[in-house]
Order: sequence, then structure tokens, then C-alpha cells
Amino acid sequence: MIILGIDPGYAIIGYGVISYNGNRFTVLDYGAITTEAGLPMARRLELIYEGVRQLIIKYSPDAMAVEELFFNTNAKTVIGVGQARGVIILAGVKSGVEIAEYTPLQVKQALTGYGRAEKNQVIQMVTMCLNLKKAPKPDDVADALAIAVCHAYSAGSRITDALRRGF
Amino acid sequence: MIILGIDPGYAIIGYGVISYNGNRFTVLDYGAITTEAGLPMARRLELIYEGVRQLIIKYSPDAMAVEELFFNTNAKTVIGVGQARGVIILAGVKSGVEIAEYTPLQVKQALTGYGRAEKNQVIQMVTMCLNLKKAPKPDDVADALAIAVCHAYSAGSRITDALRRGF
Repeated sequence: MIILGIDPGYAIIGYGVISYNGNRFTVLDYGAITTEAGLPMARRLELIYEGVRQLIIKYSPDAMAVEELFFNTNAKTVIGVGQARGVIILAGVKSGVEIAEYTPLQVKQALTGYGRAEKNQVIQMVTMCLNLKKAPKPDDVADALAIAVCHAYSAGSRITDALRRGF
Repeated sequence: MIILGIDPGYAIIGYGVISYNGNRFTVLDYGAITTEAGLPMARRLELIYEGVRQLIIKYSPDAMAVEELFFNTNAKTVIGVGQARGVIILAGVKSGVEIAEYTPLQVKQALTGYGRAEKNQVIQMVTMCLNLKKAPKPDDVADALAIAVCHAYSAGSRITDALRRGF
């Protein structure tokens, strides 16, 4: 199963592409789509949409896992990230990719077993379980890989549950 | 000049298409794109994107005027409308349509001369200046037409300013 994890944003959009087969992870790609602050928002949204679309074309993921937004006090940021998240999800749905959403709490829980884990612990766990030599930078990229791993575990446990129930 | 006005949302997306030539308005179309609450958000975003794209294909607007989000206390709504607004703007920019954004205050100011006008006054003014027999319903549709009229006035005054400056 190939999973594309996305940490949504409008300036830096972290992504991670992993393959998960027989409980083994292989990292296919990771990095960030970035858009310049000086560009009109409409152009930035177009660049984000096209960037995600190119990743989907290149890796044909079975699923795209996107972090859910949590509310913070900066309204402008929430609206901006919401807009970006809209075009990211659109890129997935228009390519027929299954879309899964996880809260930051679910991601932390899946990776560290503890929903209130520190960011560093999550980054450490993702680095370890993907067998990376060092922690991916910036944090948005590590987050995107963590979301992809979270989906692998969730999808894996759904399959195990189904087998257990005799499907 | 043909203007597509949009009142963004994810359940009801009001739209209004007007033509503005020589200070005369003609209403070409108005209505709402709606998405069912039971659908996954990804599918709703796709329907919104496709709905706006169809309007652009049908009317070839010179500009698309979209209301800016203002912050309210319901975080879920802000994020949802933000996501919808992202795909609406994307539909415009991918079709090469000029995109203009106006705050609710600017729309009220343009239509009634008063930024803190009541909603009813704005609806009354839009009904009058577009020569409609009755107020368009629901309010999202009236809002979309108001945004289109606001853009006509703003674009008109920009042209007048330019002529005055000798361009």
C-alpha cells in the first residue's frame, strides 16, 4: 500500500510518500511544496493543487492522509490553511485517491501511544520507524510522514480487525 | 463586462452572473450550488469546484468576485467555508478569470453607501439596481448578486479614475 501523507498549509506544505507492506515501511519520497508570500492567494492555491496532483501522478498512492485542522486563535491563518486544505483534498478526490483525515491527537497516539506527546517524540518515532538516518526537516515534512505512518497503522489495524472478524 | 459573484459556503454557495455595460446592469443568471450534508467533505468540495467551473464555462465571465471570509466563533464553519473558498478560487484561477475579493463591509458600502447597513437594506438595493421583481432567495443568492454589483462599481470607478488621470 502506498500512502501520501500531507501536512496542509499555504506557505509550506509538507509531504511524505511511503510504502507499507507486510508491516515494513519504505520511504519513497518526502519534502515540501512551498509558495512565495508575495504571490496572490489564487496563484498560491493553484501551485499547491498542481504540486499535490504531480505527486499523485508520480506515485499513484492508494490513499492520501491529511492532517485535520485544529482551531487556533489566528483567524487569518485558519482561513488560509482551510483554503489550501480544500485544494489539497480536491487534488486527491479528482484523482480517485481514498482520502483519510487524522487529528494531531490521533497522529500522536498512533506513533507514540500517547495523544499528548511532545512534537520531538513524534519526530523521533517517525525517524526511527521509517529507518531514516536523521529527522526530516522542516517539521512540516516530519509531520507529513507521521500522518502517512498513522494511516498505515490505522489501515493495517482495520485489515487485521476484518481478518479477525472472518472477512 | 460579465461578472460572476460568489457567496462562498460548503452547503449553499450562492452565485449571480451579471453583465455591466455603460452603467446598465443585466442579470444573466442566479441561483445556488448546494451540497448534501451527508456527503463526505471531499465529494462536496468536488461538487463545488465542478459547479463553479460549469458556470465559468457557460458565461465566460471577465471577473469573479468572491466575498472574503470574516472570522466568527464557530471554528468548524470557518475551516469548512475556508476549504470551499479554496476550491472556488481555484476554479477561477485555473480558467484564467480575474479574481476580486471584497469584505462584507465593502459590499455594504458599495451598495448602500454605508458599511454597517442592515442585511435587508443590501438586499433591497440589489433587487432595485438589478431591476428584479422580487428579492432573490435564499439570502446567499442575494449576497452573491450584491458582490457582483460591488465589483461592477469598483471596476467601473477604477476605469473612471484611469480616464480622469488621462489613461
